[in-house]
Amino acid sequence: MNHRYCVIMCGGVGSRFWPFSRNDRPKQFLDFFGTGRSLLQMTVDRILPLIPADNIILVTNSAYAGIIREQLPEIKESNILLEPARRNTAPCICWAAHHITALDPEATIVTLPSDHLILKEETFREVLEEGQTFVERNPSLLTIGLRPTSPHTGYGYIQLGAPVEDFPGICKVKSFTEKPDLEMAKVFVESGEFYWNSGMFLWSGRAILEAFARYAPEIANIFDAGDSSYATPEENSFIATAFPASPSISIDYAIMEKASNVFVKTADIGWSDLGSWKALYETSPKNHEGNVTQGCKALLHDCRNSVFAVNGDKIIVAAGLEGYIVAENDNALLIYPVAEEQKIRQVVNDIRARFGEDYI
Amino acid sequence: MNHRYCVIMCGGVGSRFWPFSRNDRPKQFLDFFGTGRSLLQMTVDRILPLIPADNIILVTNSAYAGIIREQLPEIKESNILLEPARRNTAPCICWAAHHITALDPEATIVTLPSDHLILKEETFREVLEEGQTFVERNPSLLTIGLRPTSPHTGYGYIQLGAPVEDFPGICKVKSFTEKPDLEMAKVFVESGEFYWNSGMFLWSGRAILEAFARYAPEIANIFDAGDSSYATPEENSFIATAFPASPSISIDYAIMEKASNVFVKTADIGWSDLGSWKALYETSPKNHEGNVTQGCKALLHDCRNSVFAVNGDKIIVAAGLEGYIVAENDNALLIYPVAEEQKIRQVVNDIRARFGEDYI
Repeated sequence: MNHRYCVIMCGGVGSRFWPFSRNDRPKQFLDFFGTGRSLLQMTVDRILPLIPADNIILVTNSAYAGIIREQLPEIKESNILLEPARRNTAPCICWAAHHITALDPEATIVTLPSDHLILKEETFREVLEEGQTFVERNPSLLTIGLRPTSPHTGYGYIQLGAPVEDFPGICKVKSFTEKPDLEMAKVFVESGEFYWNSGMFLWSGRAILEAFARYAPEIANIFDAGDSSYATPEENSFIATAFPASPSISIDYAIMEKASNVFVKTADIGWSDLGSWKALYETSPKNHEGNVTQGCKALLHDCRNSVFAVNGDKIIVAAGLEGYIVAENDNALLIYPVAEEQKIRQVVNDIRARFGEDYI
Repeated sequence: MNHRYCVIMCGGVGSRFWPFSRNDRPKQFLDFFGTGRSLLQMTVDRILPLIPADNIILVTNSAYAGIIREQLPEIKESNILLEPARRNTAPCICWAAHHITALDPEATIVTLPSDHLILKEETFREVLEEGQTFVERNPSLLTIGLRPTSPHTGYGYIQLGAPVEDFPGICKVKSFTEKPDLEMAKVFVESGEFYWNSGMFLWSGRAILEAFARYAPEIANIFDAGDSSYATPEENSFIATAFPASPSISIDYAIMEKASNVFVKTADIGWSDLGSWKALYETSPKNHEGNVTQGCKALLHDCRNSVFAVNGDKIIVAAGLEGYIVAENDNALLIYPVAEEQKIRQVVNDIRARFGEDYI
């Protein structure tokens, strides 16, 4: 019996990529790079050499059940957990851990986001394999840490503590700092002691459920009440009432920042969280004027360092744009300076308030 | 019998308004101002109080037969003349004059473009009525001249000569100057003696056919050969071979600049030829930041003096654009500085060369 499982979290909204990502088709479902595979499909493709399809559990919002089945026919229905409400990552992880532990009390679980880019896939799988061995032998919570390439203020930073014997690249975690200010982020990066928190975790089912019981009892109590129903026909009706009752909180705040048995495996895997247009810009091939063109024909005069992302067989003619995002999808067109992209979330909220959900 | 006829020329391409205007739907067929009526429909609406539908002749390219019937069901089929080729305005006017003269040898003809904006419609009709009376009594060619509001270098200028007794506002034409350079245009405007050539003409059928015979015999000979077929079932088969054989030339070059019996009626009718995005911008209502929004919802941050014209129920979000055209239609999106709009024609040619007709 294969005790190694993977949970892929794919229920996110991705509003920072509006209008490329939409309510009914968030970022993880998009063929981001025009390769014919969505970010979610790429995530599954990447993990399949390590973990068989039957041991891959997808957790998503019930709104995306259709698109998941369409994109991933190789994942069986019973491996798709549909959240009846949006409650951030902690409840999602707690449910998945219960579900898997009911199937296999000896399970270890790799937990992955579904919307990241990983360029060094071989290395990525080696890192996970070393991590799996570590959490099989130690009742610990392991996160993947990435050497920072810039003082990004949108990420969590992990401070490395003492290295673990026999497990190269694995250290005790000394501290977590979520979204530092720019000054602090610069100090972190220069010190060489801080790594980005990738949002990828490894643990045994038992270890993470114990951590919930100890550090997030308000969540643990809710999900423990369903112990007789996980992986049975009763699971969905239990979840329908239990899940929405859970607090909405991230796994970092609920568990990782509080637990004492947290370790980090440092890795260089060519990672980007594609969390923004800027990240997309940076990871995409550019022409000699620094422009990125995605999914469309373009005739650009005197445009520089800009992203043109338009779906469908469309032509863009533009002149005189420097450092711009030009993105169109369905009934929405965005023309915005890359430097101000952090405002896009607010824009999306403004649109919702003024014009309703049809444009989101 | 009503001897007063109107010819509306509606076969133009309008490439300066790409991508708003398209091969299959040029400018005159667009609901430019979101009023529910196209420029062509507005042209017909404007003339109907003066000339009955049965006396209105539309001359267009055969490609637009369908859209004309759809937009103007009140115009009977036999009043729609379909050009089998593009040959500029002189052959179009010559054919229409033959057709109408065959129906009514005493006809006078108001000849109008189909893609202009006229704000003072009452005055416009008064001007035409005075012009009709003038050309009924005089075998002359009358053009409508407009007081220039700027030294526009894209128009023809008419120099006023001696005023005509009993016809206020009508003068002999002293000279025509097509598209002067900026210096000359400035002198023209300051002199007060020069008026813009509106492209709207009045004459009797007889007078314009005589002018063709005298000043453009190479066109007259071609169309005279069909005299027995006009307004008969043979007309179309005659035109199918005769029309493409005609030289391609404007009425201004072929006749107006050469003829000695040319007069001008000066008028103030709130006119714009809508020949460019700049003209559209200038004639449209603006918000407090000088932005024009057409046919779409818009959320604009720090945008000024720009035009946003997008068809369909779409939202545009833009930031930091100053003096831009943002126009989208079907499979094409244009983001271009208003100040460089004269390059759009070249852009359209580039697109045709690189990507084919599908985007034009």
